Amino acid sequence: MGSWTRPSCKCCTSRPVQPLVALELSEDINMETKRWLMFRIQAEKTAGGAELMVHPGEDDDGNMLLVSASRHVLLRTAEVLGLYKLYKDGSMISFSYRDRRNFENSDNIDEFLTLAERQFIVLRTLENIKAVDEKYIPGYPTKSLYPGEAIFNRLQKTKLLHAFYPLHHEEMLNELESHWYSHRKLTLQPIDSICRYYGGSIAMYFSFLEFFTCSLAPMAIFGTMVFALSMGTVDKCILFSVFNIIWSTVIMELWKRHSFVLAYTWGTLQMNSQFEEPRMGYKGPMGTNPITHRRQPYYPTWKRKVKIWLVSVPVLCLFLAFSLYGMFIFLRLEAWVKALYSENEDCWGCMLYIPGILHTLCITALNVCYKEIAEVLTEWENHRLESSFQNHLTVKVLVFRFVNCFSALFYISFYLQDLELLRKKLASLLILTQIINQFIETLLPYFYKTLIGKETGLKNCAVENAPEIDKIKPQGQKTTFPGMFDEYMELFVQFGYVSLFSCIYPLSAILIILNNITEIRTDALKLCHLFRKPFISPAANIGVWQTAFETIGFLSVITNCLLISISPQVKEYCAENNVTSNSVLIWAIGVEHALLAIKIILAFVIPDIPQWVKLKIDRVEYQSLQALKHKLFEEGKGFGGEVEEKEGWQGGITWPDSADSSLHASNRQLNLL
Amino acid sequence: MGSWTRPSCKCCTSRPVQPLVALELSEDINMETKRWLMFRIQAEKTAGGAELMVHPGEDDDGNMLLVSASRHVLLRTAEVLGLYKLYKDGSMISFSYRDRRNFENSDNIDEFLTLAERQFIVLRTLENIKAVDEKYIPGYPTKSLYPGEAIFNRLQKTKLLHAFYPLHHEEMLNELESHWYSHRKLTLQPIDSICRYYGGSIAMYFSFLEFFTCSLAPMAIFGTMVFALSMGTVDKCILFSVFNIIWSTVIMELWKRHSFVLAYTWGTLQMNSQFEEPRMGYKGPMGTNPITHRRQPYYPTWKRKVKIWLVSVPVLCLFLAFSLYGMFIFLRLEAWVKALYSENEDCWGCMLYIPGILHTLCITALNVCYKEIAEVLTEWENHRLESSFQNHLTVKVLVFRFVNCFSALFYISFYLQDLELLRKKLASLLILTQIINQFIETLLPYFYKTLIGKETGLKNCAVENAPEIDKIKPQGQKTTFPGMFDEYMELFVQFGYVSLFSCIYPLSAILIILNNITEIRTDALKLCHLFRKPFISPAANIGVWQTAFETIGFLSVITNCLLISISPQVKEYCAENNVTSNSVLIWAIGVEHALLAIKIILAFVIPDIPQWVKLKIDRVEYQSLQALKHKLFEEGKGFGGEVEEKEGWQGGITWPDSADSSLHASNRQLNLL
Repeated sequence: MGSWTRPSCKCCTSRPVQPLVALELSEDINMETKRWLMFRIQAEKTAGGAELMVHPGEDDDGNMLLVSASRHVLLRTAEVLGLYKLYKDGSMISFSYRDRRNFENSDNIDEFLTLAERQFIVLRTLENIKAVDEKYIPGYPTKSLYPGEAIFNRLQKTKLLHAFYPLHHEEMLNELESHWYSHRKLTLQPIDSICRYYGGSIAMYFSFLEFFTCSLAPMAIFGTMVFALSMGTVDKCILFSVFNIIWSTVIMELWKRHSFVLAYTWGTLQMNSQFEEPRMGYKGPMGTNPITHRRQPYYPTWKRKVKIWLVSVPVLCLFLAFSLYGMFIFLRLEAWVKALYSENEDCWGCMLYIPGILHTLCITALNVCYKEIAEVLTEWENHRLESSFQNHLTVKVLVFRFVNCFSALFYISFYLQDLELLRKKLASLLILTQIINQFIETLLPYFYKTLIGKETGLKNCAVENAPEIDKIKPQGQKTTFPGMFDEYMELFVQFGYVSLFSCIYPLSAILIILNNITEIRTDALKLCHLFRKPFISPAANIGVWQTAFETIGFLSVITNCLLISISPQVKEYCAENNVTSNSVLIWAIGVEHALLAIKIILAFVIPDIPQWVKLKIDRVEYQSLQALKHKLFEEGKGFGGEVEEKEGWQGGITWPDSADSSLHASNRQLNLL
Repeated sequence: MGSWTRPSCKCCTSRPVQPLVALELSEDINMETKRWLMFRIQAEKTAGGAELMVHPGEDDDGNMLLVSASRHVLLRTAEVLGLYKLYKDGSMISFSYRDRRNFENSDNIDEFLTLAERQFIVLRTLENIKAVDEKYIPGYPTKSLYPGEAIFNRLQKTKLLHAFYPLHHEEMLNELESHWYSHRKLTLQPIDSICRYYGGSIAMYFSFLEFFTCSLAPMAIFGTMVFALSMGTVDKCILFSVFNIIWSTVIMELWKRHSFVLAYTWGTLQMNSQFEEPRMGYKGPMGTNPITHRRQPYYPTWKRKVKIWLVSVPVLCLFLAFSLYGMFIFLRLEAWVKALYSENEDCWGCMLYIPGILHTLCITALNVCYKEIAEVLTEWENHRLESSFQNHLTVKVLVFRFVNCFSALFYISFYLQDLELLRKKLASLLILTQIINQFIETLLPYFYKTLIGKETGLKNCAVENAPEIDKIKPQGQKTTFPGMFDEYMELFVQFGYVSLFSCIYPLSAILIILNNITEIRTDALKLCHLFRKPFISPAANIGVWQTAFETIGFLSVITNCLLISISPQVKEYCAENNVTSNSVLIWAIGVEHALLAIKIILAFVIPDIPQWVKLKIDRVEYQSLQALKHKLFEEGKGFGGEVEEKEGWQGGITWPDSADSSLHASNRQLNLL
């Protein structure tokens, strides 16, 4: 049962509890504050507490608190959060505390709730501790609190709480690693264990990474095959683009199905986020949630929409304008420098690289400051749910990054129409990312071995009953997990290269496969050892990224058709068989629309949810409906009951009466005839 | 309380019952069969009966049966069919018989279930009478029955049952008419009363017709405005097309919202068709429905899909090929005739019309025989639900009709690029439909007054206690209602004219408005007096037509852009400012894609379901979920209960213990510092 805090005071006679979350307070925190905080964490819900267990880690400067939760609280909160669990009849049902015995292995809490879920529950419970009647943080009269303010939010803002993070579980981690990436041979990842240990969205990412990499295989094979064939370049291009377009549609649809299955088995598919508790950052006057009728802060949707459309979108456009403008300046500069270089040879060749470097710098700067602004804006938009917050943030940054990554390529291909240059650029980009990744891949383990390795070695030789705190401390020193955005972005850009310009550089698929095989291991390693363990909320899908990838799919139709129509081979072909470029264009458009139609039809024909999942969901929905009727009746029974009686009797009279009356009638009728 | 069957035999002492449905048997039907049928209609469910009331209409040849249902049966079946009704807390909830008292005015059955619903319920109950152990239809040993066969289906096939139709309710009908169309001034239609009297899908149609007509107003205004303005034709075209494209998107989105509200208030929105009983025609070995666990025939989905993709689709393509081929022949013929006519004047001018007439004839023939085939195919596909049957049939016919209507126009505009001819054709088509409709509009009331008028006059002067049957008989003589397909098709074609070629003939909107104002009255009149009252199943939306109209919306972007790019004005403009037609094309494509993007974004931004409806639905969903938990717990109580106890106690021990243990610990900790 993993790592326990050894009880060190005689009063801690309760069975040892596994710590789930660690809080790091500031060294110089006021005792009163600390006592207040611990009280609030432990106190009953009625006293505005979280009903959790808190235990001071026996560290030297005593600014550590280890938080855990009893089975009782975990299960209750699981119900409030509306987690779905496997019911005894084999369907996933929203967990109910009272009925817990009928859920599969609910008696063994460590089996029933995954580590990720337990830590997520503790997080949510802590985040939901609200100020009751405190006017200020006890011990700090200057630091005010308003009633209903989330105190953890406040403590973090006031730097009294340095950090709080979920704790690793050594045994589980070691086992996970051994199955995940530490072995040398190529196997599929243990997605479910990842989900159990790290939680939904991370498991989703790795599953998607794996799926994407595998689905690149046919692409790679076909790419090599086509370019081994002896046929006209144009035909090859066309053949390959068509394949690529259908491929991109099919894999995205298949992924959708796959993710539905994953989400269903993880019980995150049916979690209706409408019922969720609002995120910590969510501000607004207290009101009752119109759906759950719980007391919650409420902020009208229309205000949010106004903010988005009148502020966020314009800001995004502004920054896009900046970056595009920057690109044009860069291109001018480059041309100018080239000209300068060509006319007087004596100046240094390195000058040629200056514009590029400048451009990269300015883009990077823009990226950084835009991301800051995007975060502020999204926070200001005041989204109710963590998921929608993340989605809005992602979209903002995503669009900007996309333009930065691809604007140059688009410019080269469709304005300059210089496909040679495009091919060069693509190759360089791909090779570059490749090399960088390889670099990281080789570098990370090295770092890990040398620097952290020592510390682990030390830990291993430490005596078994060394204070738990010595194992926990190092986790706090690691950097916080930056989120999956950059990982997804990398895949997104790869997907862009593969599908948008596939017909130009058909071997990209192979490079990317090679890259991703190492990528998986790198990411896994980073996650396990470089970063603090993150709090991960359960996820039903890859969110807005699904849309992003599908959009690329549609764009790819347009780009490929255009690329082919402007390719020199086609131009030659036209010149030879004197076809006007006009008619070529018309052909291209025709093909484009046809392909778009095919894409849409394909996406429509392939059902998103696998049949068996749909059936199970409908089944539960139906049961719920019946249950609701039952419940409503039970509630109105005192009155409804006797009515039932009376009605039954009344029915009893009129029913056979009128029935056999008409029967007689009919007989009479028949006899008459 | 409207019209009653006057009980004519002393044993019919039960309170008079309003007949809902009339069955017309063949004159020479065997007495045994009739007695058997009446028995089966009246018998208890356990005896394989329908528990309905049947009463022989006292007609001379005694081949009429009047069927009605007691409040009790109506309500029970309403629950089985999963009708949604207004609950006392103001939300729409799936009706529950036991809890009926808590539904708004459920005590007054005529208020609670609309006439349409009651008749629909009777229909469904009759349709679901299955053969139990009869090997053949009693009285007709040659006419075999297999166990579980729907006997009504069989009786109709064997011509023993001529027809069965719901009966009109004079008072309600008169009142409806007075508010609907008989008055002269322009008012909105009483949609809700239409829904109450005729049922969901018919009310949906009329609501859509109204909505569509109203939403054409801005189009018409803008059209006239633009063409009053003094600006270049091209600019006008562009301006108008852009407006038209945005317009078509917005109105379809708004309609979606509107239809959601309608469906919600009618309680058809949440009716999950998965829970519905299968339609009468549905064949398959008996199995248990995986969702409701009811005994029902079951037919695997994949077989249906195979049938659709391997048979239905190819057949459709074949017919499309025919009709296109026919069109080309017609065009050739026309050209040839023109040439002939021009070279020798002496032959008659009427010859010019022969090809057109021939073409129309052959198209009509194709339409008719294709529709037959489509019906057979769709029946053979064996759809489980009436709705999906209708949708598949509609799509099949719709696509074919669309090609027939528009192929010529497309050919003229994009192959011949003769916009003058296109304008002429469009004008003629619009005027033609216009005139025909006006004609019908004026003709129908005339017919009605003269022919049926007499009979009504006679009825009015008839003595009040004339046998009910004399009022019912005439209803049977009317032709059966052909369904809404042709009405929708008309709107669809109109929409096509308006949006696909808007920039060619901008005044079409006005013509169509005029047309539709009369259209509403014509259709209403037809429905009320020319046809038998149809059985109408509750409908949540206009089904596949929504998609069809949206598709037209997307096509319109493409056509308009192309039309503009090939318009002579643009060609002139290019010639003047020597722009290559190539770059014009590129521009057109650019604009097209931009507009498509705008359409998609608009469709995405405008939420489909109004906020308040969404809230109410989520609320019910949440309640159901809670109820399910409650119910499952209640079921497992005997065991779960004591567990609850034990658990609470256990929690009671470890909980405060470990809590204050760590509290002590912390105090110790704090004192140490």
